[in-house]
Amino acid sequence: MKTTFFGESHGCAIGVVMEGLPAGLELDMGQIRFELSRRAPKNELSTARREIDEPEIISGLHEGYTTGMPLCVIIKNNQANSAHYESLKRLPRPGHADYAAFVRYSGYNDIRGGGHFSGRLTVPLVFAGAVAKQLLAKYGVFVGGHLLSVGDIYSEKLNPLKVTKKQLKEIAAKDFPVSEDITAKKMKERILAAKADGDSVGGTIECAVIGLDAGYGEPGEESLESLISKRLFSVPGIKGVEFGAGFGFAVMNGSEANDQMSAEAGAINFQSNNNGGISGGISTGAPIIFRAAVRPTPSIAKKQKTVDLTSLSNADLLIEGRHDPCIAHRALPAAEAAAALAVLDAIKNTGGQRNAERI
Amino acid sequence: MKTTFFGESHGCAIGVVMEGLPAGLELDMGQIRFELSRRAPKNELSTARREIDEPEIISGLHEGYTTGMPLCVIIKNNQANSAHYESLKRLPRPGHADYAAFVRYSGYNDIRGGGHFSGRLTVPLVFAGAVAKQLLAKYGVFVGGHLLSVGDIYSEKLNPLKVTKKQLKEIAAKDFPVSEDITAKKMKERILAAKADGDSVGGTIECAVIGLDAGYGEPGEESLESLISKRLFSVPGIKGVEFGAGFGFAVMNGSEANDQMSAEAGAINFQSNNNGGISGGISTGAPIIFRAAVRPTPSIAKKQKTVDLTSLSNADLLIEGRHDPCIAHRALPAAEAAAALAVLDAIKNTGGQRNAERI
Amino acid sequence: MKTTFFGESHGCAIGVVMEGLPAGLELDMGQIRFELSRRAPKNELSTARREIDEPEIISGLHEGYTTGMPLCVIIKNNQANSAHYESLKRLPRPGHADYAAFVRYSGYNDIRGGGHFSGRLTVPLVFAGAVAKQLLAKYGVFVGGHLLSVGDIYSEKLNPLKVTKKQLKEIAAKDFPVSEDITAKKMKERILAAKADGDSVGGTIECAVIGLDAGYGEPGEESLESLISKRLFSVPGIKGVEFGAGFGFAVMNGSEANDQMSAEAGAINFQSNNNGGISGGISTGAPIIFRAAVRPTPSIAKKQKTVDLTSLSNADLLIEGRHDPCIAHRALPAAEAAAALAVLDAIKNTGGQRNAERI
Amino acid sequence: MKTTFFGESHGCAIGVVMEGLPAGLELDMGQIRFELSRRAPKNELSTARREIDEPEIISGLHEGYTTGMPLCVIIKNNQANSAHYESLKRLPRPGHADYAAFVRYSGYNDIRGGGHFSGRLTVPLVFAGAVAKQLLAKYGVFVGGHLLSVGDIYSEKLNPLKVTKKQLKEIAAKDFPVSEDITAKKMKERILAAKADGDSVGGTIECAVIGLDAGYGEPGEESLESLISKRLFSVPGIKGVEFGAGFGFAVMNGSEANDQMSAEAGAINFQSNNNGGISGGISTGAPIIFRAAVRPTPSIAKKQKTVDLTSLSNADLLIEGRHDPCIAHRALPAAEAAAALAVLDAIKNTGGQRNAERI
Repeated sequence: MKTTFFGESHGCAIGVVMEGLPAGLELDMGQIRFELSRRAPKNELSTARREIDEPEIISGLHEGYTTGMPLCVIIKNNQANSAHYESLKRLPRPGHADYAAFVRYSGYNDIRGGGHFSGRLTVPLVFAGAVAKQLLAKYGVFVGGHLLSVGDIYSEKLNPLKVTKKQLKEIAAKDFPVSEDITAKKMKERILAAKADGDSVGGTIECAVIGLDAGYGEPGEESLESLISKRLFSVPGIKGVEFGAGFGFAVMNGSEANDQMSAEAGAINFQSNNNGGISGGISTGAPIIFRAAVRPTPSIAKKQKTVDLTSLSNADLLIEGRHDPCIAHRALPAAEAAAALAVLDAIKNTGGQRNAERI
Repeated sequence: MKTTFFGESHGCAIGVVMEGLPAGLELDMGQIRFELSRRAPKNELSTARREIDEPEIISGLHEGYTTGMPLCVIIKNNQANSAHYESLKRLPRPGHADYAAFVRYSGYNDIRGGGHFSGRLTVPLVFAGAVAKQLLAKYGVFVGGHLLSVGDIYSEKLNPLKVTKKQLKEIAAKDFPVSEDITAKKMKERILAAKADGDSVGGTIECAVIGLDAGYGEPGEESLESLISKRLFSVPGIKGVEFGAGFGFAVMNGSEANDQMSAEAGAINFQSNNNGGISGGISTGAPIIFRAAVRPTPSIAKKQKTVDLTSLSNADLLIEGRHDPCIAHRALPAAEAAAALAVLDAIKNTGGQRNAERI
Repeated sequence: MKTTFFGESHGCAIGVVMEGLPAGLELDMGQIRFELSRRAPKNELSTARREIDEPEIISGLHEGYTTGMPLCVIIKNNQANSAHYESLKRLPRPGHADYAAFVRYSGYNDIRGGGHFSGRLTVPLVFAGAVAKQLLAKYGVFVGGHLLSVGDIYSEKLNPLKVTKKQLKEIAAKDFPVSEDITAKKMKERILAAKADGDSVGGTIECAVIGLDAGYGEPGEESLESLISKRLFSVPGIKGVEFGAGFGFAVMNGSEANDQMSAEAGAINFQSNNNGGISGGISTGAPIIFRAAVRPTPSIAKKQKTVDLTSLSNADLLIEGRHDPCIAHRALPAAEAAAALAVLDAIKNTGGQRNAERI
Repeated sequence: MKTTFFGESHGCAIGVVMEGLPAGLELDMGQIRFELSRRAPKNELSTARREIDEPEIISGLHEGYTTGMPLCVIIKNNQANSAHYESLKRLPRPGHADYAAFVRYSGYNDIRGGGHFSGRLTVPLVFAGAVAKQLLAKYGVFVGGHLLSVGDIYSEKLNPLKVTKKQLKEIAAKDFPVSEDITAKKMKERILAAKADGDSVGGTIECAVIGLDAGYGEPGEESLESLISKRLFSVPGIKGVEFGAGFGFAVMNGSEANDQMSAEAGAINFQSNNNGGISGGISTGAPIIFRAAVRPTPSIAKKQKTVDLTSLSNADLLIEGRHDPCIAHRALPAAEAAAALAVLDAIKNTGGQRNAERI
């Protein structure tokens, strides 16, 4: 499942080419639009830039079914406003990739709206993830998640053994991906408080992959954790990833940490899921559980110190334009998409290798 | 820098093939042996299995210099004792990959000593990392780290802006990779307490990549975070990875989180390094800082509940053999090796692409 | 230099995403259009379908310079006429991929105009090759070629040691890529004779890569021959590839075949170039010479025997629509593009690995 | 089916790591040794260096079955005689990779016996191919071939539609892979004549892949032709590859070239196989037929002109040591191995993608 993302925030369009899709998959465009709407900015919690995000499929789909050929989709950028970016060519924004990219690309990268570094690139990621989710559904696999925290406001963690598809679908249907309304309200207030202060705030998200049988993945650099984290860290703003108990393992003893097993009516059950559904890089059959840390949006309305790249002198910077006071909730569908693609990668890698009768 | 690892814990040997090495690198075998010795089990804190771990170079080295051809090294397994593993064929050990691997490989995987899943596979990883470190040294890049915590005993975090090569080399020279002796003592006691209780304990490690210029890496799935995490999650027992402030970002505001810049004598300095030296997937020139969570060793001496795979009935399991009460400190050189290889990957990917005069 | 091609002949557009381009390359669109015009159908020798083939750059270019980000281009299909393809869904055309694709994609592939299998996909290939040629020019490397034969009409082979850029540029500037006008005239007559007979005819092309220094490439599956042939065999209709003396080696003795060397004023010269500029998979500094066999266009106006896939019974097929009586001359710019991309791949793979001072 | 080859001709050993093998394949070591014996030098037609070529399996095999983990094998070099190579450090041998490699690896490559460029590296290739053949047998796929020509002595081409496994197995069982004894005798005489003259001679080989169903492979750079040619050109000495009619297509009309079809008892039959079993990069179900040109051995006993790399002056070279007067017949099992691996690659790439029910 090779995905090639392209586009810049203020260029004419963004998009992705997906290779390795089977032929004959009937694409459910409604479900794709639903996933895109989850990522889209909404109400006062998000940037005022409102794109329609209508996917135009260029190739790989014929009469509603995948052809087995590369599927290319583009999404036009219609609402870009590049007015505020001229001065940024010489004043890198703290927390953004501006300075690193300036060095990397000798100043030739398109800085308008962050260019290819923009969170806008998560539109094609969510598109690709929506397609991946449709394929995974054929295996009985579902990927979902919720917003675990905003600043110091935490919702309850998913039950790593008992989390259900129904529960996650209900959260996905909400305009803010938190199950408890009272917590959602507090988180929104936290975001609006940051916004009112010209500031932004970070958060964490938590996802589950439900229904994946044991036996997918492998040890080494193609481990399920490697595949998932590699894709997750492509999402702008994600700076930490943990599986199962994750950093919580550090303060555990082995006797607490180990997921013991029992048999019931011929089925094998885990009594805990600290490993987050992955052991030795391979799925155990328990839900895959991971969390990701999302940094506060780097674009804030406060004055910041930076350097003028032309004169190499100190400069003050006041960022204008339209920005999100928090991106954690919008990173959630992107993280789910990343995980859906990674799980498909693992299924493809594993193939029918389980025994010598099939390759 | 393609690395292909092979071998099983109780097979005849383990090893790695490294492709993409330049010709003419004079390998410092002393430095390689030093890195291997850091990983080797020592004293009462580690397993009683003591291998000599002498690397035999099969190819790619001629008269002490790399030939530019694939470098293959094997390390013999001499001290394997497979006596305790017969019953494990049907009794998967909780916390180990046994059950997932049984399904994945239809029971054909070599379970003796954990087979290819064994921490023993970190021997060739540390070897490859030692070679990578020698190449990185030619760029002025150094990779080091320390044990940040064992259970609830924490040492002081590295200063993300001011951490030095000298400081990390001093830690690497110690028999236990913690700078403060008093903390080291407490950690060792914590490990021995777990051991005395027939249990094990988890921990965290923290690493720094020092001296990497700004401008290496790229956005997307080949981001520096993606490359590093992909390799880190190949190390058995690592279940969480964070860069810079990592999960700490979740409770920050943007105004705290952003790394502001200043100019001094024509140089650009960061005033903080919450991004851990990576922004938009590209190095910023500040030290790369990451932490990893290491789960408690799954092999413990306490009785555990598992399932007999032949009868699909409940079973009690008592693991015999030689095991580590903690692997966090031994995972440190493996994590450094993983990071060194990933940084080389990024340097190779980036190549001379920075401007159009060179590809 | 990763290239991802997408699109179908009668879909809305075709295109390519190029990854790994350096930032700051000023794209010469005139040169790109020139290369596309070499591939475009012309006069009575080619199909009557005449597309404008105007490349629309979606991403990766800003103010005329590459940004270092993925460069996506699409070329619209405006002149598709799918009227003739309905019956082909069940009647696979001999010589075409129809039957193999039907099995491979369970009938879901888009057969209109050959879909993704169409020679139309060489438009984005030639685009990508034109970009590659601009990059190669910075290394002093030039890729060109000529039509070596049509049916049994042969032009003179390139001199493998003395072929010049000037000579190849003159051929490229012609409307039919043959240096001797009298031979060109005979070849055109051969093509028109096939056309008049409702038939088609095959041919061979010959290319040279001039100016590549010794020392690029490597032994094994990433050999220069491997890289070039892998890309050449992606061009529809190419069924054979040879380097240097190629199949002519089979009837030589070693004493004829070996390229002996001499020194003159500190430079090393080859006295022949039977190896076609590649030895052990690595460039020797002599021109890289290769030839490719191009099969006759499978679409002919004669009645052919096929099978009705719905009834699995014998059927006669008469293909309608617009077709090329020969594609060898139009395959030439596609083959040059494939080679240009492959040589860039080799340069990137080789990088600065030549000594240990650089990676 | 990733294969990583390593080793140098006069180093301690050569070998390969195979990744992606299924678990539970019972390796038939007798069949592997048989394939190695086909490649081994024999009688007066080959080099006098006689290695035992006993494969030592380091990993990935347990109790006779593959474990699903990387399978590493090494083959020791016992008969290397490096006496003759000292002077070659400065006198590159015409036709060999010496000069190209000297530039590429700054003189650090191991030139003894050709180092990694040696035909000796086809030992692990044939090993890997033998394993691949065992896997392919589970699909009913067989790979075989014969020596088509030596100098101007030709045997009869395989019948591209009717070639059988039985026929190819009989050829493989011979000490010289030619079906007609009278032709074999002439070819041997041709080789011995070259040898007597201190010279060498080239040849061609022809292979068939029998039993592969239609529908494996894909258009573009992962076409069956691309996969096969990429691996074939890794075999030292192969300088041309053609599929089906190959270069013969160039003089055909479409009406001759197209493989027409007929139906019989519900089965689809081709009436010719000019496409060599591949159309649009995908298998058609007919045998895959390819031919490869093998250059004359570059090592000959005649005096040749070269350049002294230290003084950059002209020099005469007289090569000593043990050499093959012809390598075409010994390249045959290597080519079969390359094709077997490539076909497995295609099967793995294709996977169950044929419809949307499976990935």
